[in-house]
Amino acid sequence: MKISKIGLFGKFRDASVAPVLERVRKLLEDRGLKVLIGSTTSAEIGGERIDDHDQPLDQLIDMAMVVGGDGTMLNAARILCTHGVPMVGVNLGRLGFLTDIPQGDLETNLDALLAGRYSIENRTLLQTTVVQGGKAIYEGVSLNDAVISKGNTGRLIEFETRIDGRFVSQTRSDGIIVATPTGSTAYSLSAGGPIMYPTLSVLSIAPISPHTLSNRPIIISDDAVIEIDAFHTPETHANLALDGLIVRELTGDETIRLTRADTKLSMIRIEPHDHFEVLRTKLGWG
Amino acid sequence: MKISKIGLFGKFRDASVAPVLERVRKLLEDRGLKVLIGSTTSAEIGGERIDDHDQPLDQLIDMAMVVGGDGTMLNAARILCTHGVPMVGVNLGRLGFLTDIPQGDLETNLDALLAGRYSIENRTLLQTTVVQGGKAIYEGVSLNDAVISKGNTGRLIEFETRIDGRFVSQTRSDGIIVATPTGSTAYSLSAGGPIMYPTLSVLSIAPISPHTLSNRPIIISDDAVIEIDAFHTPETHANLALDGLIVRELTGDETIRLTRADTKLSMIRIEPHDHFEVLRTKLGWG
Amino acid sequence: MKISKIGLFGKFRDASVAPVLERVRKLLEDRGLKVLIGSTTSAEIGGERIDDHDQPLDQLIDMAMVVGGDGTMLNAARILCTHGVPMVGVNLGRLGFLTDIPQGDLETNLDALLAGRYSIENRTLLQTTVVQGGKAIYEGVSLNDAVISKGNTGRLIEFETRIDGRFVSQTRSDGIIVATPTGSTAYSLSAGGPIMYPTLSVLSIAPISPHTLSNRPIIISDDAVIEIDAFHTPETHANLALDGLIVRELTGDETIRLTRADTKLSMIRIEPHDHFEVLRTKLGWG
Amino acid sequence: MKISKIGLFGKFRDASVAPVLERVRKLLEDRGLKVLIGSTTSAEIGGERIDDHDQPLDQLIDMAMVVGGDGTMLNAARILCTHGVPMVGVNLGRLGFLTDIPQGDLETNLDALLAGRYSIENRTLLQTTVVQGGKAIYEGVSLNDAVISKGNTGRLIEFETRIDGRFVSQTRSDGIIVATPTGSTAYSLSAGGPIMYPTLSVLSIAPISPHTLSNRPIIISDDAVIEIDAFHTPETHANLALDGLIVRELTGDETIRLTRADTKLSMIRIEPHDHFEVLRTKLGWG
Repeated sequence: MKISKIGLFGKFRDASVAPVLERVRKLLEDRGLKVLIGSTTSAEIGGERIDDHDQPLDQLIDMAMVVGGDGTMLNAARILCTHGVPMVGVNLGRLGFLTDIPQGDLETNLDALLAGRYSIENRTLLQTTVVQGGKAIYEGVSLNDAVISKGNTGRLIEFETRIDGRFVSQTRSDGIIVATPTGSTAYSLSAGGPIMYPTLSVLSIAPISPHTLSNRPIIISDDAVIEIDAFHTPETHANLALDGLIVRELTGDETIRLTRADTKLSMIRIEPHDHFEVLRTKLGWG
Repeated sequence: MKISKIGLFGKFRDASVAPVLERVRKLLEDRGLKVLIGSTTSAEIGGERIDDHDQPLDQLIDMAMVVGGDGTMLNAARILCTHGVPMVGVNLGRLGFLTDIPQGDLETNLDALLAGRYSIENRTLLQTTVVQGGKAIYEGVSLNDAVISKGNTGRLIEFETRIDGRFVSQTRSDGIIVATPTGSTAYSLSAGGPIMYPTLSVLSIAPISPHTLSNRPIIISDDAVIEIDAFHTPETHANLALDGLIVRELTGDETIRLTRADTKLSMIRIEPHDHFEVLRTKLGWG
Repeated sequence: MKISKIGLFGKFRDASVAPVLERVRKLLEDRGLKVLIGSTTSAEIGGERIDDHDQPLDQLIDMAMVVGGDGTMLNAARILCTHGVPMVGVNLGRLGFLTDIPQGDLETNLDALLAGRYSIENRTLLQTTVVQGGKAIYEGVSLNDAVISKGNTGRLIEFETRIDGRFVSQTRSDGIIVATPTGSTAYSLSAGGPIMYPTLSVLSIAPISPHTLSNRPIIISDDAVIEIDAFHTPETHANLALDGLIVRELTGDETIRLTRADTKLSMIRIEPHDHFEVLRTKLGWG
Repeated sequence: MKISKIGLFGKFRDASVAPVLERVRKLLEDRGLKVLIGSTTSAEIGGERIDDHDQPLDQLIDMAMVVGGDGTMLNAARILCTHGVPMVGVNLGRLGFLTDIPQGDLETNLDALLAGRYSIENRTLLQTTVVQGGKAIYEGVSLNDAVISKGNTGRLIEFETRIDGRFVSQTRSDGIIVATPTGSTAYSLSAGGPIMYPTLSVLSIAPISPHTLSNRPIIISDDAVIEIDAFHTPETHANLALDGLIVRELTGDETIRLTRADTKLSMIRIEPHDHFEVLRTKLGWG
């Protein structure tokens, strides 16, 4: 991969990120690279802009550099994934699972990147389709997870889960998390799901606070088609959230269909990258 | 305790309960007891009524008999607890933690009750007070639990918990469950809380899907004053639910104060009663 | 696959299995099949024998039929796996994860089998090698799991885990379970591991009662090489168990190396087979 | 409580503790106190000795000061508890749940202690009796826990638990932990038990990796009599450990009876002491 044009993305409307973005831009331009600024990035930073949404991004930029935390990376990933643009993250504060470059060590990492000392990890993305009356009424892509959970109710909701058309279980819980390996260290972990190595071709289905204590996380192939029906009563309400953002309120007669997305996310990993070291640091092991 | 007047309570507005209520009433009247029907009980059943809310119930009835499931018992408990009226439950379907008398074995149990073969268990009730700007703006009593949890949001909420004025922790999670021993086999169990013997003088505080994996359930004395602040951001919303019913949406500047209520709930246990047998059956042990 | 010669295996030295074995043999011979009896099978049953250990079994039999529980299947699997002989289980009592044919429904299932209404599932086997001073001093194969755990000690043991040569963590716990997907519903589940669909190409590594609460099960590719060092002090002792049988006491200077075995186990699944139905029944869902 | 004579205890036979012990002794003697050295304490330190075991310790010393970690405290507690001698711990390295005085801040803490700025916490101790053929064949006291667990076997062991003579459950697991509130942050926590505030009058019973996933920790009054039978087969072996030390191998026909001990342990807490601060630090909250 030849890197000559870089898209620079920052936290949406967050002016505080501007100084770091400026510094990254200067470092990149000093190294002879062309820098384009993502259109949803803070207006505080000047420079030539690209529209995040409409452009065939892969023709305009060779890679995307995202400045922020894991949340900013998730947002950028959803934009970039359909274009096949590889991305790398610069973390502003604490070490992130997705952001590879510490702010305090920008130059060394940029030099490593431009010298080709990086690898590309292809991460599974999750495709979520809401089907009602036989029609797809919503489609979305997420990097971490899709979560169907109760909304403003103190009660459990009831789910039926099917995998490849076969009935798995009817369960009552606060919700269900379908997570990619990338998302296995996010919400799914809090709900009792396992850590999955990020490049595996699997998905996990984990119930949130299930009424039946033997309802445990299940790991399946990411070839599978997962279908979930969330039953409604007048008193319960369910939401669908992708990567932590509610995208839809459910009325109770939808089927949520989850599959691996057609595209993968290309994550740039600057060498040496060690996923286990990130796990140890983030989870406080040893 | 002399039993001559019995209040009969059934599921609110649920006509299907009426035949069982009628049968219970007849059995009680056949045994020379005066039966009064709770005012929120299904209108399908005739007879003299009492207003659940306003009357000094303890002067009108010696005990309450509640026909339904654990949910109906929880509702009745909140009405009855302030009056010190002892209660017993008749379960309609599956065995309940609170309903002692199986529908199929009504007569034997009523005879045991009237022959004095019962004991009374005093159960701790939880008093929840919402304080805002130094003023109590809501008060409620619950038998199982008080739950502060996220509403319509895909994100975690942040809590600060204090016990007897001392800071315990600042945590991010889907919510916090404060449960009585009675409630320890309900929602709290699904969230990883322990089973507490029902007559203990303790409370448990359990986080729901906590971000920090070492945030674990804590058992404290029911003498303690628990205070919880749920911080808001524009994107997150929290609710307060008592016994599974949302009683209040939180705006983020309230303190939720939880203590043992002044009164206890008197549960009538027809002998022989074995809490461990109920646990084995309900939880599928062995 | 042409089925004309069947090896019949039963619980080692357990005479009570003999009547069922006899019945199975008769049913098979009635259908024109040649039946050979495994040499470790109960002596109560007559007929031509084959030596389980030395023969090139795949030249003598087309498939193995194992009568017993999941434990008997595990033992038979270790014998059969190196020969590539497919196997099917007849359960004597309760439904098993491995035994497909209920004793009460033998004839229907045998007819389905002989009519070709079956599929073959290839299950990953685990190869465990104990390395000391650079030499392999023990090798073994298991279908469910390899477990390194403390022996006669009240104290934790300390482990270092590496995956593909990279350091993962140094942990203190009662032990570590490395499980195949097949083993994910056995011991690993009790220790908090996830359910893995049986045909996945992954392994799980789960700590048993870890001192650090954030030490959680990890799912990795079954291409990986796992290495575990269990450190000894004079007061602690560790054992290595394969499929629940202790195969070796560890002295503390060994490295336990775990990989996918070269061969897979061929499990015959008589149609219709539904793994989720087995899960629902065995785990008491719904 | 008048403090004039102090017993000084250190890690058994560990010479490395001697310099700290010497320093503590000098600081105490500088403040006009008489110091006696526990007989099992490192021989490297000189001075007048007392026999830990035989003396009526409470007539010789007013309090015990223990230098070491939580393990040293546990050992000292078992010696001191029967004599009613209050104790305080000086931690050598990491903060402990039991050791109150950090080594780096000895003088301030000793001055606070001698000025009376301390409180005394009475901690429940566990009395364990092994009964065989109707006779008590072993008795022991522990501060943290009593654990019945499998020994050198890869298999589960089967338990029957009774509370106050009533059958609770028959379970299969790696073992059972009965913990005091003090022990709730030790082994019990790793096995999924809750944190119990240290001065509560309760005990917890937690299964270790139970085969039945709904077998969960149970909290009961410390007035209760717990009885556990561990069944043996020729292949399984069980041990009884108190505070992490195996005290007895079980043959399978014993009943293990657990009750609150007659005496409590008096823990000296130098003000200000904040148990929640210790929890936050030890468990890495926030």
